[in-house]
Amino acid sequence: MEQTATPPAVNFEITPDQYQHWKLTIDGHVATLAIDVREDAGLRPNDYKLKLNSYDLGVDIELADILQRLRFEHPEVHAVVLTSLKPRIFCAGANIFMLGSSSHGFKVNFCKFTNETRLGMEDMSAHSSMKFLAAINGICAGGGYELALACDEILLVDDGTASVGLPETPLLGVLPGTGGLTRVVDKRKVRRDLADDFSTLTEGVRGKRAVEGRFVDATYPTSKFQEAVAKRAQELAAQSDRPASGPGITLGPLAPSIDGDVIQYKYVKGSIDRAKRTCELTISAPDSRQPQTAAEFLAAGDQAWAVRAFRELDDALLRLRLNEPEIGTVIVRAVGDPRAVLDVDAALDAHRGHWLVREIIGLMRRTLKRVDLTARSFFALIEPGNAFAGTLFELALAADRAYMIDHPDEGNTIRLSVMNAGSYPMSNGLSRLQVRFLGAPDTVGRVLAHDGPFTAREALDAGLVFSAPDDIDWDDEVRMAIEARAAFSPDALTGMEANLRFAGPETMETKIFGRLTAWQNWIFQRPNAVGEKGALMTYGREGRPSFDFKRT
Amino acid sequence: MEQTATPPAVNFEITPDQYQHWKLTIDGHVATLAIDVREDAGLRPNDYKLKLNSYDLGVDIELADILQRLRFEHPEVHAVVLTSLKPRIFCAGANIFMLGSSSHGFKVNFCKFTNETRLGMEDMSAHSSMKFLAAINGICAGGGYELALACDEILLVDDGTASVGLPETPLLGVLPGTGGLTRVVDKRKVRRDLADDFSTLTEGVRGKRAVEGRFVDATYPTSKFQEAVAKRAQELAAQSDRPASGPGITLGPLAPSIDGDVIQYKYVKGSIDRAKRTCELTISAPDSRQPQTAAEFLAAGDQAWAVRAFRELDDALLRLRLNEPEIGTVIVRAVGDPRAVLDVDAALDAHRGHWLVREIIGLMRRTLKRVDLTARSFFALIEPGNAFAGTLFELALAADRAYMIDHPDEGNTIRLSVMNAGSYPMSNGLSRLQVRFLGAPDTVGRVLAHDGPFTAREALDAGLVFSAPDDIDWDDEVRMAIEARAAFSPDALTGMEANLRFAGPETMETKIFGRLTAWQNWIFQRPNAVGEKGALMTYGREGRPSFDFKRT
Repeated sequence: MEQTATPPAVNFEITPDQYQHWKLTIDGHVATLAIDVREDAGLRPNDYKLKLNSYDLGVDIELADILQRLRFEHPEVHAVVLTSLKPRIFCAGANIFMLGSSSHGFKVNFCKFTNETRLGMEDMSAHSSMKFLAAINGICAGGGYELALACDEILLVDDGTASVGLPETPLLGVLPGTGGLTRVVDKRKVRRDLADDFSTLTEGVRGKRAVEGRFVDATYPTSKFQEAVAKRAQELAAQSDRPASGPGITLGPLAPSIDGDVIQYKYVKGSIDRAKRTCELTISAPDSRQPQTAAEFLAAGDQAWAVRAFRELDDALLRLRLNEPEIGTVIVRAVGDPRAVLDVDAALDAHRGHWLVREIIGLMRRTLKRVDLTARSFFALIEPGNAFAGTLFELALAADRAYMIDHPDEGNTIRLSVMNAGSYPMSNGLSRLQVRFLGAPDTVGRVLAHDGPFTAREALDAGLVFSAPDDIDWDDEVRMAIEARAAFSPDALTGMEANLRFAGPETMETKIFGRLTAWQNWIFQRPNAVGEKGALMTYGREGRPSFDFKRT
Repeated sequence: MEQTATPPAVNFEITPDQYQHWKLTIDGHVATLAIDVREDAGLRPNDYKLKLNSYDLGVDIELADILQRLRFEHPEVHAVVLTSLKPRIFCAGANIFMLGSSSHGFKVNFCKFTNETRLGMEDMSAHSSMKFLAAINGICAGGGYELALACDEILLVDDGTASVGLPETPLLGVLPGTGGLTRVVDKRKVRRDLADDFSTLTEGVRGKRAVEGRFVDATYPTSKFQEAVAKRAQELAAQSDRPASGPGITLGPLAPSIDGDVIQYKYVKGSIDRAKRTCELTISAPDSRQPQTAAEFLAAGDQAWAVRAFRELDDALLRLRLNEPEIGTVIVRAVGDPRAVLDVDAALDAHRGHWLVREIIGLMRRTLKRVDLTARSFFALIEPGNAFAGTLFELALAADRAYMIDHPDEGNTIRLSVMNAGSYPMSNGLSRLQVRFLGAPDTVGRVLAHDGPFTAREALDAGLVFSAPDDIDWDDEVRMAIEARAAFSPDALTGMEANLRFAGPETMETKIFGRLTAWQNWIFQRPNAVGEKGALMTYGREGRPSFDFKRT
């Protein structure tokens, strides 16, 4: 039914000199990010051409990289204008032929990454004091409009052809699944009947009608558009508290060494066991002096542990998701000196008002969210020599289970820090401790107030770990848990984890990954979309889709 | 891949003398509802046997009927004990062989109905002042435990065998999708790692361990169990403000006449056009004097329009869902004298403190939620002679779009009433007007304060209807909208509507129908569950499931 050709391994590292699809220009406090997709430069150029500024994962990897560099390398940028360099076309959305020729798992992970990138723009608006302005100067459809929806404001040229639209349902038999449906009614608060109509139009809406429906914020004739965009961008930039000038810090290559099934970064190591379908993912605490002041963070740049270790972790997670679909369980360890992690936490907390420290905390927050949203089982193993302290203990909290050995001879403790008290909210807006103790909210304050380390027994009693076997039981219990996990249906585990990890309130962000994505994934399985005569497969080819009209 | 045998048409009407699977006994203010499923009395007895108190849709239709009769016929019942008459088995959940031999659409609609029934129990607890106590006297697994989770409290006998568990993931490769995962972490607030472990056990947990994990509220040895259940049931009953004694009102048969593709109740008519794949659903306003006092509501019983019309509507929706999967669009009309509807609204509002009026409003609330959750497109047509006023205008608000003819000669108006101001919250806790005007919240108060009827032009300007074509454009616009809808992918429409209808906050209820159900439906499509070697298909047969271990 679906295409199952294995795509080439995806590399998420890229440098500005390699950009092919986006042009970044910085003028004072305003950056202009213009899309100009090279048709023949898709990740699988033999399978599809990226016409009409449509995108594939490679285009989005560039975008994510640019956004990351804007955060760290360009503190002088206070507002970003998104626009197109192609005449009469802003962006046609995700490339349909790419989707049609991708496996189910690739489609799902492609959508997840693009969703994370767009939510990252909203994260920049909320946390980094950088606002986004979509300057739509052509046809803006589907994923193109979803990109605009992720901006703070949307301006549309009124030239008789430029339009915004979500034609996925009528044209392709799928959803605008990169946040489109959710943002239309939940962010822009478009009335549901107008949203219903809008989402069934193939041609989108233009000019005043787009403003009246709240689909864009304003429209201007061609002669006044550039001026209006520039003016509004300056106004948005003026709201920022980012520094007036740089320097920022440069994000150099991570350059992991890959040897068979082992990937080794400086602080992160991933080691795959294909027979067990596990990945041992180990993150090391700092082993050298770390910055204590904002100036020292600036001087250390991308070599500060807080930056480097979490960039490495982020890269490892993305490679795992896209390139290693059969690896179902991630065994997480943090090793090294926990006091070194707590020292970093203290420095981050002391200087969180500084733009760079704010960005470093943001990098950690987004990387930890990436763990929450990774459809693999995570088991944290807490053993003597562990560095599960403060920020690194968030990895144990993000795990589906944490096992901590209660060793009679060797010390084995964990520690919390002030950074566990809300610096890294999950996508539902709560800290991982708050979600963990929804049923006993007083516990959050109590464990945070705990003086000093927790032994395994104390951690178990406090509810901070799942199990604390002694040294005699440890090997068997952990081994059996990992083996049992590997035997379950991977789909049931994905659904189970997506439900159990996100107790408590829902936000626009969780609605995108829960409600919207789950329905889209369902549709991505249905013959009406991906069958031989499904709408996603027949699009742009001869013949029309043929539907089984049974509703469910 | 999946079984597509068309099941026999389902009839949702049943009377107590027809019950085969449940025994209801009433002792003072406490009702005991005991499950004792007849193995050979499933809806498709040749396909499966209902062993171990497992259930199919027929068992659940009985349960839903009993609950409805408890509400209306037995006001003296203040608490309900759920237990089992079978030795050592409480309930094994939904029958696996039934699921395995059902079409995708049937599985989805079966789960939706069972979810609505269990949420109905929580609705009774919240609104009807009737509490539920699960008295688990045997093995209680999967859907059986999900039934217990819908109760206010769960007591478990500690006899060495009785247990609670959610073995769906390890045994069947699917989710506990009847609210199980959601209620464990969101209602009972079980810690996520304990919930994760619990949801991967095939054997469940017993006794004290079940209490410690918050999976049940208390456990008692066999010798003390009945006494503890009786005592707690009395305590729960004592909290109720339901009347000390009856009489209630008896719910007689609806007895619609069915003639080909037309179903005719007293106030509701459904007429199917198979070529267009539409159902014209018309509800009539009262045409006779309606109760003005609580005593008159009691005297009128099930013949009061408010009771009868909404029971009919509920029945029509359920038949449509299960028996008419290819009918994608519902064209809703309300006809008759709108003043008669407003008079009913005034009486309901004046006497909403009376137990029976409270139940009638609850019936309307739940039926309207059933509309929101029906995976068909709803278009309301508001034409001269319409009765879209007050409560009946909720049907227009629940519709994906409402079209109102702006007729130059014939009067055509709509009206709101006090009943639109929050008496019928959606499952997200907001009124339909609040959800509609999320982007302009002041509008809610303004339209409610509007004096008198809205003309088509006024309704359009106020944002109460989607479109108000004049008499010249009406036919074409409505016809084209209906034809366009019929041409879209039914799956994309289902996903689109499930996202656009529920803007705003999420609740446990919406998480069950959005997040949990959407993931379950996805899994119900996956070869790992429903393929030839999928876990749902191989269960209880020779051979073990064979999984494609790729995670998504």
